[in-house]
Amino acid sequence: MSKKGGKDIVFRRWGLRSNSKTLVNVIRIFKPNTQNEKQKTMAALDYHAEERRKAEFDVEEMKIVWAGSRQAYEISDRVARLVASDPVFRKDNRTMLSRKELFNDTLKKAAHAWKRIIELRLSEEEASELRFFMDQPAFTDLHWGMFIPAIKGSGTEEQKAKWLPMAYKMQIIGCYAQTELGHGSNVQGLETTATFDPHTDEFVLHSPTLTSSKWWPGGLGKVSTHAVVYARLITDGQDHGVHGFIVQLRSLDDHLPLPGITVGDIGMKFGSGAYNSMDNGVLRFDHVRIPRDQMLMGVSQVTREGKCIESDVPRQLVYGTMVYVRQAIVADASTALSRAVCIATRYSAVRRQFGSQNGGPETQVIDYKTQQNRLFPLLASAYAFRFVGEWLQWLYTDVTQRLQANDFSTLPEVHACTAGLKSITTSATADAIEECRKLCGGHGYLSSSGLPELFAVYVPACTYEGDNVVLLLQVGRFLMKTVSQLGSGKKPVGTIAYMGRAERLLQCRCEVERAEDWLKPHVVVEAFEARAASMAVACAKNLNKFPNQEDGFAELSPDLAEAAVAHCQLIVVSKFIEKLQQDIPGKGVKRQLEILCKVYALSLLHKHLGDFIASGYITPEQGALANEQLRLLYSQVRPNAITLVDAFNYTDHFLGSVLGRYDGNVYPKLYEEAWKDPLNETVVPDGYQEYIRPILKQHFRVARL
Amino acid sequence: MSKKGGKDIVFRRWGLRSNSKTLVNVIRIFKPNTQNEKQKTMAALDYHAEERRKAEFDVEEMKIVWAGSRQAYEISDRVARLVASDPVFRKDNRTMLSRKELFNDTLKKAAHAWKRIIELRLSEEEASELRFFMDQPAFTDLHWGMFIPAIKGSGTEEQKAKWLPMAYKMQIIGCYAQTELGHGSNVQGLETTATFDPHTDEFVLHSPTLTSSKWWPGGLGKVSTHAVVYARLITDGQDHGVHGFIVQLRSLDDHLPLPGITVGDIGMKFGSGAYNSMDNGVLRFDHVRIPRDQMLMGVSQVTREGKCIESDVPRQLVYGTMVYVRQAIVADASTALSRAVCIATRYSAVRRQFGSQNGGPETQVIDYKTQQNRLFPLLASAYAFRFVGEWLQWLYTDVTQRLQANDFSTLPEVHACTAGLKSITTSATADAIEECRKLCGGHGYLSSSGLPELFAVYVPACTYEGDNVVLLLQVGRFLMKTVSQLGSGKKPVGTIAYMGRAERLLQCRCEVERAEDWLKPHVVVEAFEARAASMAVACAKNLNKFPNQEDGFAELSPDLAEAAVAHCQLIVVSKFIEKLQQDIPGKGVKRQLEILCKVYALSLLHKHLGDFIASGYITPEQGALANEQLRLLYSQVRPNAITLVDAFNYTDHFLGSVLGRYDGNVYPKLYEEAWKDPLNETVVPDGYQEYIRPILKQHFRVARL
Repeated sequence: MSKKGGKDIVFRRWGLRSNSKTLVNVIRIFKPNTQNEKQKTMAALDYHAEERRKAEFDVEEMKIVWAGSRQAYEISDRVARLVASDPVFRKDNRTMLSRKELFNDTLKKAAHAWKRIIELRLSEEEASELRFFMDQPAFTDLHWGMFIPAIKGSGTEEQKAKWLPMAYKMQIIGCYAQTELGHGSNVQGLETTATFDPHTDEFVLHSPTLTSSKWWPGGLGKVSTHAVVYARLITDGQDHGVHGFIVQLRSLDDHLPLPGITVGDIGMKFGSGAYNSMDNGVLRFDHVRIPRDQMLMGVSQVTREGKCIESDVPRQLVYGTMVYVRQAIVADASTALSRAVCIATRYSAVRRQFGSQNGGPETQVIDYKTQQNRLFPLLASAYAFRFVGEWLQWLYTDVTQRLQANDFSTLPEVHACTAGLKSITTSATADAIEECRKLCGGHGYLSSSGLPELFAVYVPACTYEGDNVVLLLQVGRFLMKTVSQLGSGKKPVGTIAYMGRAERLLQCRCEVERAEDWLKPHVVVEAFEARAASMAVACAKNLNKFPNQEDGFAELSPDLAEAAVAHCQLIVVSKFIEKLQQDIPGKGVKRQLEILCKVYALSLLHKHLGDFIASGYITPEQGALANEQLRLLYSQVRPNAITLVDAFNYTDHFLGSVLGRYDGNVYPKLYEEAWKDPLNETVVPDGYQEYIRPILKQHFRVARL
Repeated sequence: MSKKGGKDIVFRRWGLRSNSKTLVNVIRIFKPNTQNEKQKTMAALDYHAEERRKAEFDVEEMKIVWAGSRQAYEISDRVARLVASDPVFRKDNRTMLSRKELFNDTLKKAAHAWKRIIELRLSEEEASELRFFMDQPAFTDLHWGMFIPAIKGSGTEEQKAKWLPMAYKMQIIGCYAQTELGHGSNVQGLETTATFDPHTDEFVLHSPTLTSSKWWPGGLGKVSTHAVVYARLITDGQDHGVHGFIVQLRSLDDHLPLPGITVGDIGMKFGSGAYNSMDNGVLRFDHVRIPRDQMLMGVSQVTREGKCIESDVPRQLVYGTMVYVRQAIVADASTALSRAVCIATRYSAVRRQFGSQNGGPETQVIDYKTQQNRLFPLLASAYAFRFVGEWLQWLYTDVTQRLQANDFSTLPEVHACTAGLKSITTSATADAIEECRKLCGGHGYLSSSGLPELFAVYVPACTYEGDNVVLLLQVGRFLMKTVSQLGSGKKPVGTIAYMGRAERLLQCRCEVERAEDWLKPHVVVEAFEARAASMAVACAKNLNKFPNQEDGFAELSPDLAEAAVAHCQLIVVSKFIEKLQQDIPGKGVKRQLEILCKVYALSLLHKHLGDFIASGYITPEQGALANEQLRLLYSQVRPNAITLVDAFNYTDHFLGSVLGRYDGNVYPKLYEEAWKDPLNETVVPDGYQEYIRPILKQHFRVARL
């Protein structure tokens, strides 16, 4: 692509009219830095320069691989720099703010973001990137990510025509009120009722119990004017299960809650900063009336007479949305994980401890094998999750097309694999962020390292959109069903296809004789297949010992969850290997990814060695050889480590970490940051006269003499 | 023990004079509740009553086992209730406070604690319990826990006579200034200098580089008047390594830093509340002079002429302190872990989700095997860590006596085992707190669950007093030394004695044929011994392949760390089993502990199955039998779970968790807590006019038309 052509495309993509007044501004802001210019600015001070010279691959090409495409790279690069350079989006003082100050800061940023989105006429995708790089949970996430999609997904054409334009202009702000105090995972157990009153043609929304209070919805507590509320539909005394209703919560004039509505914030959550910028809320209804046409009637309808009828739209269509949400969560996992890994990797190259010889510098901690053994598998996981997320994007397109063609055949497999991948990537990411924090030693405990807040803001991903253990059990059930149908001639497809070869896999023995044999992709894949198949088959056998299947499921659920993990890890490994079969340009890029792929697979093999040996596929000796090979791979990652995290292309603003600074100038900045703490506003602390001096001057003791 | 006798002992222990005016107060405060009274108060509302009726053991006796002795139980029970009933010690609003407010709250509590300690004439042990139950990190922790012990441990008799009385009365407040911005683990690499000036008979303390800034010491930032500062001793141009110096930091008149001293707080740390109550500090010296007699000269002295001489006091004596500190850290681990487990267990019995039959209540989540499989091993770990901590207390006494008799023979083994136990118990506890939080589902993410703050305040234990990985490598080195000496006739003793039987262990095969065979203690111990021996021997063999031992250590360090974990887990299992060989009174108490011991051991076996199978001692089939037995044990834990956490005897104040309330009245209290958030002070949030209304009213858009 020529420079000129590139520019034109960029301008077109940004929807710029060349005679628009904004163009000048936009060109200034988005002025494309050439590679040389970038390097010049950074060369001023770069403690990592030596590390960067070691790299054996083309980092610019790797950035494009990471982003998924050149276009995606360019958008995110520009929007990230736009956000980073805007003082309103500063976030370095966030953890010091009180709840009220933090919330106010969020409102300010959200309003400013909206203003910029309009001024710059950003596309929906660009606007979404801007909110992403703003990096502060806000009511807008729910408005755009849940409220609008819920109406789009479950509303009728008339409802969409009525509500979406207002929502797109933010003339109303909405949230998604599903979870209740007493019910999260069990959506069918929600208690809020929506009772149809045929006399007035209205639904009466009501919270019959304390536990029926809506609890957790983001954006609900203080901001949303509207909500999609999930409630039990009752017509003529009959319960028709849970449906969605559009309910106005607050006056558009003065923002006060409407009559019958009690609404507020549910209070502080994990960490400082983090998710406390969000007004997760509580909501109670006392016989609140809404017109009948505010029930989302895309799938079921209630007639004027109060008759509840199902539409002929296949219910399976909702699975499309589910796949979409889960691929987004997997993409988020790779983002959060790569942020943490970027910080820990850069700091591990700055930090030196022990090993000074003849008064020379001490050893960089990244050179210690124990550090590599903890860090490099996480670096590899970041790439692995990125690529499986990319594949899930493809899967979403595939499923959507199939659904439109009324082909529901792949749904069970898609459902299982998206559930499982959501579960294992979010669990692994949460653990990995904390591991990265520990890899930064004591300084990782400082808020200025960015890692405590990243952990606190990330961990809910293990619970929302399906508790990770509940999801694994769904995968487990799918595996058992697949195994039970093996004899029936029904051939497993897609990610579960290997189960069709279960019998052979269980008899197969690994061919590895030397450590380097573990470098062959088919050996690795077969080991993961044999392990997954063996665990599923063992579960199925044990299940058969129970007279009652459900009792068996209950009793063996921990084993089923482990089998599910094995199945999902196989998927991630396979998709990584498939990615490597694509054409990947750029000097050394493919080679680096091959190394990371093996690090990912072999580190999992080591971690779950018992499973692999118990499958009978590998011997303990072969397991030891895999570990030996893993160690050798670490040495190949080492010289490229810094550049492999540079490839994520994160700005210092987005990373929000003194330890993870691009230039590695850690210590002076840590020192500088410290003095910004409110406690340092005065030399002698408030409370000295009242609480410290009396102790030192023995006033307590004296009083008793 | 008769009631009367018991009372007398209690009064004597509390150091009360019966004619003292305080006695009346103390009797009122400490009025012993009879068992009946206690039960009556609690019976008012107890959602767990049914659970408590299920218990198959005497909880009161278990409380004494947990506390270590009846006396320890009584002290902690009374002090805990004293703290819980004092409104100054309230902590339910802690996570909502700004940094300054929180710090002020800490100063207030510390002053109040000191006042109460004096008024009630508490003994040192009781005062320490009071600070413990205050449950808020404060400068006093360092004053009593580090500053005073440092002077006691390294000062001469004259120095102790001069400084300790002032410190005991808190006429001076001290901290322990060791860690620097650039050096943590590598204490010998500290850069601060203390140069002797023979002209003035003074030391000149100086911070020659930015990285030499003292960084992290608690109590330093805002409060301490004095510090024990660790610095390189320089006399006559010669570097004598790191020594301790007593340095006054702030004026006793106006609390201002003395000339040449720059001191402040290092800023926000992980979480809200948590460790932000502590003024971890930064400190720089610009040629600060102190008299020669303020160097701690218990071990080395500097003469008037500037000659540095070593005393004849054996350097090994410092190991006594180290063992003491580490046993305290292990005890802390069992406390933090048991708190988290108590919260998660109680809430798991309150929370119901899915499984409703015919409109009946849903299933308590504690009845799900997946929940049990995650929770009960942690419950078992809490008890396991408690007992190994108890054993470490004994070890401390034993080591102290040996050191006094100049017997240094057990030191290497004691050093390795305390280092390793510190490492594995703190790592396991940090992970377990987060797991308990996840076990509480979404609500565990609320600050009012208590778990986020518990996690944030606990995790530094993995780093301070020895980074956990660095410690494991020390254990690894000890294991390698032990293996290398096996042929030499030197018999390994104590916790490493099993290595003397390594050859036999490596050939031994497990005798288990049925699941219940895993209930035999000797089978379990031998499995853990065989695994630990096999891993150590394998490491030693691989090490021998390297021409240079140190290169081998570096390369194989991850394997060495794993071998160290295996060794330390064996110690915990063994000490639990030894505890069970003691006389344990009380109906059913011993039986419960036996079950927990097996849960602890078999869950570890399952988690590290690869190690056990690779050792050749067990087959995959025997591993599967262990897992089957583990499941059966869960069913035995289940009816006792609530009562097993009641036995920790934690007040609701100490737990600080709505989810973990003794009475199980979770939902109404969660709801109540929510409204206390500052955001709920107004119905319409601050910022509405400025940031929300303009969006809704389309002012941004209008401005561009």
